[in-house]
Amino acid sequence: MSLDALYSELTLKTKTKHVLVVLDGLGDIATRQQNYLTPLEAAATPNLDRIARESAQGRMIPVAPGITPGSGPGHLGLFGYDPLEFQVGRGVIEALGLGLELKPGDVCARANFATLDAKGIVTDRRAGRIPTETCEKLVALLSSKIKKIGDTQVLIKAGKEHRFVVVFRGKGLEGPLTDADPNREGFVIPAVKPRDPKNLKQKKMAKLIADFYKAALPVLAKEKPANGFLMRGIAHQPEIPLFVDRYQLRPACLAVYPMYKGLAQLVGMAKIEGPQTIQEQFERYLKEYDNYDFFFIHYKYTDKYGEDGNFAAKKKAIEDFDAALPILLKKKPDVFVVTGDHSTPCALRGHSWHPQPVMIHSAASGSDKLERFTETGANSGSLGVFPAKFMIRLMQANAQMFDKFGA
Amino acid sequence: MSLDALYSELTLKTKTKHVLVVLDGLGDIATRQQNYLTPLEAAATPNLDRIARESAQGRMIPVAPGITPGSGPGHLGLFGYDPLEFQVGRGVIEALGLGLELKPGDVCARANFATLDAKGIVTDRRAGRIPTETCEKLVALLSSKIKKIGDTQVLIKAGKEHRFVVVFRGKGLEGPLTDADPNREGFVIPAVKPRDPKNLKQKKMAKLIADFYKAALPVLAKEKPANGFLMRGIAHQPEIPLFVDRYQLRPACLAVYPMYKGLAQLVGMAKIEGPQTIQEQFERYLKEYDNYDFFFIHYKYTDKYGEDGNFAAKKKAIEDFDAALPILLKKKPDVFVVTGDHSTPCALRGHSWHPQPVMIHSAASGSDKLERFTETGANSGSLGVFPAKFMIRLMQANAQMFDKFGA
Repeated sequence: MSLDALYSELTLKTKTKHVLVVLDGLGDIATRQQNYLTPLEAAATPNLDRIARESAQGRMIPVAPGITPGSGPGHLGLFGYDPLEFQVGRGVIEALGLGLELKPGDVCARANFATLDAKGIVTDRRAGRIPTETCEKLVALLSSKIKKIGDTQVLIKAGKEHRFVVVFRGKGLEGPLTDADPNREGFVIPAVKPRDPKNLKQKKMAKLIADFYKAALPVLAKEKPANGFLMRGIAHQPEIPLFVDRYQLRPACLAVYPMYKGLAQLVGMAKIEGPQTIQEQFERYLKEYDNYDFFFIHYKYTDKYGEDGNFAAKKKAIEDFDAALPILLKKKPDVFVVTGDHSTPCALRGHSWHPQPVMIHSAASGSDKLERFTETGANSGSLGVFPAKFMIRLMQANAQMFDKFGA
Repeated sequence: MSLDALYSELTLKTKTKHVLVVLDGLGDIATRQQNYLTPLEAAATPNLDRIARESAQGRMIPVAPGITPGSGPGHLGLFGYDPLEFQVGRGVIEALGLGLELKPGDVCARANFATLDAKGIVTDRRAGRIPTETCEKLVALLSSKIKKIGDTQVLIKAGKEHRFVVVFRGKGLEGPLTDADPNREGFVIPAVKPRDPKNLKQKKMAKLIADFYKAALPVLAKEKPANGFLMRGIAHQPEIPLFVDRYQLRPACLAVYPMYKGLAQLVGMAKIEGPQTIQEQFERYLKEYDNYDFFFIHYKYTDKYGEDGNFAAKKKAIEDFDAALPILLKKKPDVFVVTGDHSTPCALRGHSWHPQPVMIHSAASGSDKLERFTETGANSGSLGVFPAKFMIRLMQANAQMFDKFGA
C-alpha cells in the first residue's frame, strides 16, 4: 500500500479550517556580517512570538538535500506534491506568471523575439531587448493573424522586453520538446524534436511548432529588429491530482503575484482576486472564512528583499507582516501554519537549499516551549527537519482528520 | 526522474575545492561513567570550536536506523553511494585491507589456513592460529606454484596469523558464492555454489574455486598443521560509478591505513601515498591543493581507541587531531566538512548505529550559533539527522555547484 493511499484511507470528513501562510523565501542563514542573526531573528515579531509559545516547530527540506527550488517546485512541494514526480515546465511557469488561465494538457512555450539575417541565421537572440511596448505590439499582431494551427488554439501573451509566451490548446498534445533555440548567435533556429522519440503526442506537438513557425515568421518578416523568435521550455501542464480530492479540503488562494495564483490553480485552488496588500489579504480571508476549508496566503516581499540581498528590508517585510497578523487572528482556524516555500538568504541573494523554518499551531500541536519563531529555534523543534511534501499531512493530523491506523 | 538524475542535471562545472575529514568512529555516547560527556565533548578542541561558530551541524545515519556499519558501508555511504545498493563483499574488503590493487570484476575471497585429517575432515578451522611468518611462507609457496587457473590470474596475499586473501582476475567472473567452509570442525570442506543458481558467471567462478582447491591442496599436503584452507566471502568488486562522474570533482585520498585507501580507490579516488601522521597528511594536502578538487582525509585513531574502550585515549586522539588542524587551515577550501564514518562508542567497544556528528563550513553554510562541535550540539543543528549518503550533495550545494531546480 502506498503512503498516499494510506493517508486517503484514513482521512475523515471534518469541518475544520486550515490556514497556510507562506512568506516567500522566508528562511535565511546567520552570518558574521549579520551579527549571527537571520532577518527573522533580528525582526521584532510580537504576534508570531505569541503563537510560537503554543506551537510546534521544525524545518522543511523543499525538494531534497542540497536542491535549491524555483517557485514551482517550492510551492508544489508545500502543497504536498512530490516536485520530482510533478515537474512543471518553464513555459507553463512563465504562462502562469503572466496570469494566463491554463488547463491541464495545455502546451506552453516561453519565447523571445530575436533578429534573423536573410538566411535565417540568428544574429541577436534578444532582438536588442526591444521595449515592452514593442513586444506588446508584435504579440497583438501575431495574435490577430494566428488564432489556430489546424484544430489547435493558439494563445500568445507578451511579457517584459523581448519575452512572450505561447500556449497551444488542443487534444492529444504533449511536451517536453527540445528548444527552438540555437543557444547562441550565428546559427539557424533548430527544428524542435520530441524529448522521447517514441511519444506520438510529442511528435504531433513538434509538427505543430514547425507549422506555427511557418505561419508566424512571414508575419514578422518586415519587422526590425524583431523579425524572428525563439521558443524554449516547451511542455504541457501536467495532470495533477486535485487538492480537494487529495486532502478533502476546499482550497482557496490569496496571492498578489500571478505566478503564485497560477501555481495554486494548478492543483485546483480557487483564486480569490482583489487584495493587493497583506492587510487586504487577511481582511479578505475573514470575509471568505466560511466559503473554503483551506487558505493559502502568499506574501512575496521576504523573497524579493532576500534576492536583493537587503537584510534591513527583509527584516522590515517580516515586521510588516507581523504587524498585520492580528487581522488574520480575528478568526482562529483549527490549524495555522507559518512557513516559507524555501530559503532566500540575503547573503546569497537568491533561493537556496537551506531548510525553511515552519511553525504549526493547533489545539493538538503542543508547545515546543520556544519563545520565538526563528531558524535557530526551529532546529530544536519537535517536528525535526522533514520533507516539505508532508506538511499538509501534518496539518490534517493537527486537525484530527486522520483515523487511527490499525488497532 | 530519479533524484540522482536530477542532481546530475543540475550540476554546474565549478573550480571549487572540497575537504572531507573523517575521524573514524568519531561519534560516541554520553554515559554516567563518563560524567555524561562524549570524548568529543570532553576534549579541548580550540580549532574545531573556532570553525563550529561559522558552520552548520547535524548528525548522519550511516546506513539506516539501527544499522551498525563496517568500514565498507560506512565509507561508501559517506562517499554518497547507497550501501544497500553497492555491497562490497568481505573478500574485497579484506583484499583492500591488505593493500591489494583491485580492478572492477576481480573476485576476492578471504581465506584461513586450516588443519584437515586424512579424510579431508576439518579438525582445526584456524590451523592452531599459526604465526604470521608461517602464513607468509605458505602463501609464498602457493603463489610460486599457482599463478593461473586456466586463463584466470590468481593473486594470493598473506594477512595476520592464519588469514590470507585470494584474488581471481579474469573475464566473465562474478560472485557471490557460498562459502568453502563447514563453519565448524568435524566436516569436510563443502564445494562452493553460485548464490544465484541461474547466474552463469557465478557457475564459472564456482568451478574455478574447485579447480583452485585441486591445485592448491596437494601443494600444502605435507605441511603441519596448515595442510588445508577455507574460503569465505567470495564476491567480485562491483562496478561503482566513478566519483568524478558523479560529482564533477577530481577526488584524492589521504589515508594511512590500506583499507581506507582501498575504499577510496573503489570509487576512483587517487591515492596519495606517503604521509604517516595527520600532520603529514595535512602538509601533503597543502602541496596537492591545486591537483585535485576533493580531498578525503582519513584519521584512524578515534576508532581504534573507541574499539579499545579507552575514553582517555580517544579524547587525546581528538585533541591531537585538533592541534594539527591549523596546518590544514592554511589553505581554505570552499567547503570543509568534519565528521566520522560511524560512531564507535567507548562504552560499547565497537562500531555502533548512533548517528555521527557532522559539521559543514562554507561561505554559504551559515552559522548554527553553536560554540563547539559536539554530538549534543549537533542535535540542534540546522542539518537535522539525515542519511550520510546526502552529505557530498550538501557539500556541492555549499559550493554553489547546483543550478536552481525549476523556475
